[in-house]
Amino acid sequence: MAALSLGRRSASTLATDLLRYMIPRHYHRHLQTSTQTPAKVTDFAFAFDIDGVLLRSSNPLPRAHKTLSYLQKQRIPFILLTNGGGKSETERAEELSQCLKVLLDVSMFVQSHTPFTELVDEYKDKRILVTGGDGDKCRRVAENYGFTNVLTPADLITAFPALWPFASPQNYESYARPIPNRRLSDREYNPRSNDNTIKIDAVFIFNDPRDWALDTQIILDLLLSQSGHLGSLSPKNGNTSLPNNGYQQDGQPPLYFSNPDLLWASAYHLPRLGQGGYKAAFEGVWKAVTGGAKLEKSVFGKPYQGTFAFAEKRLQSHRHALIGSGRSKIGTEGLKRVYMVGDNPESDILGANDYQSASGSTWQSILVRSGVYSGGEPAHKPKVVVEDVWDAVQWGLEKEGWS
Amino acid sequence: MAALSLGRRSASTLATDLLRYMIPRHYHRHLQTSTQTPAKVTDFAFAFDIDGVLLRSSNPLPRAHKTLSYLQKQRIPFILLTNGGGKSETERAEELSQCLKVLLDVSMFVQSHTPFTELVDEYKDKRILVTGGDGDKCRRVAENYGFTNVLTPADLITAFPALWPFASPQNYESYARPIPNRRLSDREYNPRSNDNTIKIDAVFIFNDPRDWALDTQIILDLLLSQSGHLGSLSPKNGNTSLPNNGYQQDGQPPLYFSNPDLLWASAYHLPRLGQGGYKAAFEGVWKAVTGGAKLEKSVFGKPYQGTFAFAEKRLQSHRHALIGSGRSKIGTEGLKRVYMVGDNPESDILGANDYQSASGSTWQSILVRSGVYSGGEPAHKPKVVVEDVWDAVQWGLEKEGWS
Repeated sequence: MAALSLGRRSASTLATDLLRYMIPRHYHRHLQTSTQTPAKVTDFAFAFDIDGVLLRSSNPLPRAHKTLSYLQKQRIPFILLTNGGGKSETERAEELSQCLKVLLDVSMFVQSHTPFTELVDEYKDKRILVTGGDGDKCRRVAENYGFTNVLTPADLITAFPALWPFASPQNYESYARPIPNRRLSDREYNPRSNDNTIKIDAVFIFNDPRDWALDTQIILDLLLSQSGHLGSLSPKNGNTSLPNNGYQQDGQPPLYFSNPDLLWASAYHLPRLGQGGYKAAFEGVWKAVTGGAKLEKSVFGKPYQGTFAFAEKRLQSHRHALIGSGRSKIGTEGLKRVYMVGDNPESDILGANDYQSASGSTWQSILVRSGVYSGGEPAHKPKVVVEDVWDAVQWGLEKEGWS
Repeated sequence: MAALSLGRRSASTLATDLLRYMIPRHYHRHLQTSTQTPAKVTDFAFAFDIDGVLLRSSNPLPRAHKTLSYLQKQRIPFILLTNGGGKSETERAEELSQCLKVLLDVSMFVQSHTPFTELVDEYKDKRILVTGGDGDKCRRVAENYGFTNVLTPADLITAFPALWPFASPQNYESYARPIPNRRLSDREYNPRSNDNTIKIDAVFIFNDPRDWALDTQIILDLLLSQSGHLGSLSPKNGNTSLPNNGYQQDGQPPLYFSNPDLLWASAYHLPRLGQGGYKAAFEGVWKAVTGGAKLEKSVFGKPYQGTFAFAEKRLQSHRHALIGSGRSKIGTEGLKRVYMVGDNPESDILGANDYQSASGSTWQSILVRSGVYSGGEPAHKPKVVVEDVWDAVQWGLEKEGWS
């Protein structure tokens, strides 16, 4: 479960490239207007998961405001690193600022799909399928990132209702769009009996899919197709003389997941299935249909190295800004230690434990009981288990000899 | 994939019990009013799959009418044996009679969920969850079978919206019902933080689920619960000192699938995922959540022995009625051979090949190209591959020396 899976890019390239797309727009506005001017900037920092650490189902957890306010007052750098998503970073940062009554800049906010910005150049002139999230919010996030030709399963089922006989097209009416920009490549392939010659160049799961059945059928079709031509079927499928028995050997679109979390803490008292649940369902279907072929895919989000590398660069920028806006130069020697506070052993704890920093910082994992973790031996061992985010920060500060 | 999986009942008990519930109402009405009186009744018969053999996406296939008319005229017994479902047998038989322009009695019609009638006695005073199919048609089929306390996922998500945060309750408004008949057992368990103390005694997948995500979360919850109390979590889960690591060891409701078909032939030119696709998705999630525990379940429908045994008894009854309504007693020595005509190697061909008849008949499998099978080496080898249902019958008649 812990394998690094960042597809075609190395983790270090990813982190560097990501920064190009994430230009902080209102960076540190709140620091410059702050009247607080504490004495120093620390060489340690915190990274917080959001759901189960600061919020539970959109409601602030008891000591979340107190914790973040304290850190801001003390000029201790922190970042929010979530496997959540489904909205733009700006929208989410504003909501969270309001909810927690702490002013949070968009640059302090890394969502599961933020790393997809790195792939904009690669797919700039290509057509991608985006799924997950409410309505077509994720399509709009993708367009905001710079993708120019974005389809959703809703568009496809509206254009080709026979694709999935059990769909309810009226559920998609309000946001389905006509297929735009038919291209030369759309006409190159001549499928047997219909006109859905749409070529898809990549599949991005931005957020938890809502209609698992429709999404599974469409993504399956694309992964079994010739070069992503919807309605085609690769003759290589099942050819045992080819690698992976011929599956995904015929120019099919790459498949990107943004978030591997199997479970997450919602308003319900038991953990609910997350995007990792959908991934497991898709893998079950893939196994049955292919007779056990490997599913080639790229998975972003915690616990993967690239996401942590990106988060670390953000923390470094944030820390430099804190130094620049303060009166003291103490701490310019660099970021040494990061405390990752999370509720999910599979993403937060594993990710922090395994992370190899290119700049030499060490990450320590702190597991809280306020979210999805419900006691017992966690699947991945944190440095410490504490009650909530306040206790987590107190533990970190004690380790730092902070008074 | 071929393992017999009929849960708590043996196949022979199943076939006998089933007949008690399936009293033909208008049995052989069409024969008694027929003016045709051929000379003999054969000691062989045919069993036809429907989708991909007689119909394709509700449209009759070219020589389907001709084939069935011919057999009726020749007084050759046949039965329709489908892994389809989602409607009552009466409704489906009437539709098919109209569509194929051949008068078909309800008794000649075995759907995937017809065997569930056998379980009515066991769950008469208990509460079952029924899913699959359009709206709540399958709830009404179940009630028609004699189940008295039937819930659907729509009822549960409407009563407890937090169960699945990504549901759209408005999609279920038109057919969700309030939870009826709260029972003593509902109040025995006190879950941590809400009042959804509903006890479910069995889960029946009658037909292809439409909302895979909702159904998966609810069925998963029940299979991880204490004794089927929704909202509870069995402390035995994950206990490695227990069988199956403690999973499904705490009185959880049994899970019944009606149809294992992974793929089926619809109006689309490529096969679409069937109920077996949902089963594979659920198994993927189950594997991820339990860390690889076995999923205890019962699967009905072709290719399983019990379904074929039930079909054979129907054929025998049908044949006796044909003899009784004819002028000749030729052929009373019994049914000797059955030709199973299907488009699906996994269900029709495998099932006929593996079937062990208690009455000593032999079944021969005929694969047609008019449905889901698209050429190549089939996963299970039939006696013969032919173009369509007419050719299949001609092949059988030739083997019989029929002129």
